[in-house]
Amino acid sequence: MIEYFTEEGSAKAVNARMGDTVNPRLRTIMASLIEHLHGFIKDVELTEPEWETAIDFLTRTGQICSEHRQEFILLSDTLGVSMLVDAINARRPQGATENTVFGPFHVDGAPIREMGETISLDEKGESCLYEGRVLDLQGNAIEGAMLDVWSDNIDGYYDVQQPDLQPKWNNRGRFVTGADGCYSFRGIKPVSYPIPDDGPVGQMLALLGRHPWRPAHMHFMLTALGYQRVVTHTFAVGDEYLTSDTVFGVKASLLQTFEHNKSGATQWKAEFDFVLVPG
Amino acid sequence: MIEYFTEEGSAKAVNARMGDTVNPRLRTIMASLIEHLHGFIKDVELTEPEWETAIDFLTRTGQICSEHRQEFILLSDTLGVSMLVDAINARRPQGATENTVFGPFHVDGAPIREMGETISLDEKGESCLYEGRVLDLQGNAIEGAMLDVWSDNIDGYYDVQQPDLQPKWNNRGRFVTGADGCYSFRGIKPVSYPIPDDGPVGQMLALLGRHPWRPAHMHFMLTALGYQRVVTHTFAVGDEYLTSDTVFGVKASLLQTFEHNKSGATQWKAEFDFVLVPG
Ligand SMILES: [Fe+2]
Ligand SMILES: [Fe+2]
Repeated sequence: MIEYFTEEGSAKAVNARMGDTVNPRLRTIMASLIEHLHGFIKDVELTEPEWETAIDFLTRTGQICSEHRQEFILLSDTLGVSMLVDAINARRPQGATENTVFGPFHVDGAPIREMGETISLDEKGESCLYEGRVLDLQGNAIEGAMLDVWSDNIDGYYDVQQPDLQPKWNNRGRFVTGADGCYSFRGIKPVSYPIPDDGPVGQMLALLGRHPWRPAHMHFMLTALGYQRVVTHTFAVGDEYLTSDTVFGVKASLLQTFEHNKSGATQWKAEFDFVLVPG
Repeated sequence: MIEYFTEEGSAKAVNARMGDTVNPRLRTIMASLIEHLHGFIKDVELTEPEWETAIDFLTRTGQICSEHRQEFILLSDTLGVSMLVDAINARRPQGATENTVFGPFHVDGAPIREMGETISLDEKGESCLYEGRVLDLQGNAIEGAMLDVWSDNIDGYYDVQQPDLQPKWNNRGRFVTGADGCYSFRGIKPVSYPIPDDGPVGQMLALLGRHPWRPAHMHFMLTALGYQRVVTHTFAVGDEYLTSDTVFGVKASLLQTFEHNKSGATQWKAEFDFVLVPG
């Protein structure tokens, strides 16, 4: 008995078409994708004009992509998909520092600096002393941990977004812990910034009554031999977008308080301890 | 209590972000989309390299689209989405002619011809007499029904795909029924053809162990005042791709037997009655 396509059996009909020698992981992924995709269409009883709108949206999202812009990653970010994939792939025990999205602005090979040095090469912005420790789950200092840090500038742009306006490596640097596991460096108190919203994703956000802003954050990537890599940010307590980060990056454990620095060497002081997991 | 993004509550966190004044239909669609999209990612525990592959696939699918090519529609077709949307939006009572996919090759304004005339302007291919009736659900003839018909040529191409090689309107025409509801025209027995498979969708089909072929079919669009429009094909019984149409267009009720034409005016004869629904 041949089973042709029917509304009821639509997902089954599509999945039955996969060949016998398909990669097992691809088979699993496609079977689930088809089930959920058809389930969505049935749940909302998608109309033909709505289907046309979806085709047009996806097409425009692909066509605005270029060497300098990845609109599908923006779409993934703003739909919470990037955070979900990160969460699934970076599950950690209680007490360990949590991950958040990598973001598109990391650059490999930032200058390795001495503890206490500044990454604010243009000296614009509210100066801040960042310090804390890199620890294991038992609270022991981790020696030789590398902290790769990056933030936007006073106007909300990363250096790579303004190669003609900012010094190279402005607000970026790498620091390696000594035996005490401590780190300290000077930078600026970061500012909130919008993701690019002049394309299809920006139009989508507007239709959904959402803004394109991310709350102020300092990016950290921590690597240490024998420990899992941590890709995360610390988020400035008090930022107006803290509860509405357009890419859903904020986690309660990543909030960071900026305090006035009484010693006076910088305007602000921000402490944060990172806890790494073996692996 | 602020609820930040968590793996468990990911879809809820994203949907909670929609504004109060969002169009209610858009809200319904997006809420379901996010539930199913996150559900899919959780079901398969998508890895970061797999996410990167998906971003790259969608980007390439958008970038190959042009005035002459719509790869996202091909993707929709080959994942059974186009047929599902069509099925949901063209539910009909038992006995009525079923819809199938429109396809990309219809052209408005084909010549209106007299019953019995030919649409095979290049006279290439195995000639066939198509005839039958246009009826209502009670079996009464429908007068003034327009049949808009189109097929590929002997090489599997529609005229619009080969504007320099085929006469304009080759294998296309429109016919209007008289009081008897009957139609008849001459064309060719269509041949199977592959959808364009030199892009991302073709690569996907190959990885899934699927071929890009459609079984031979004659396209029909029927319109009549007071009746729902029918967009469908008839499929040639015996075609090797009948049970594996790469766009899932075949339905049991749309199978058409081609018989040797004993009268000799054409090589083949193919009968089919269409039944329209009021609306
Ligand atoms: Fe950032
Ligand atoms: Fe066709």
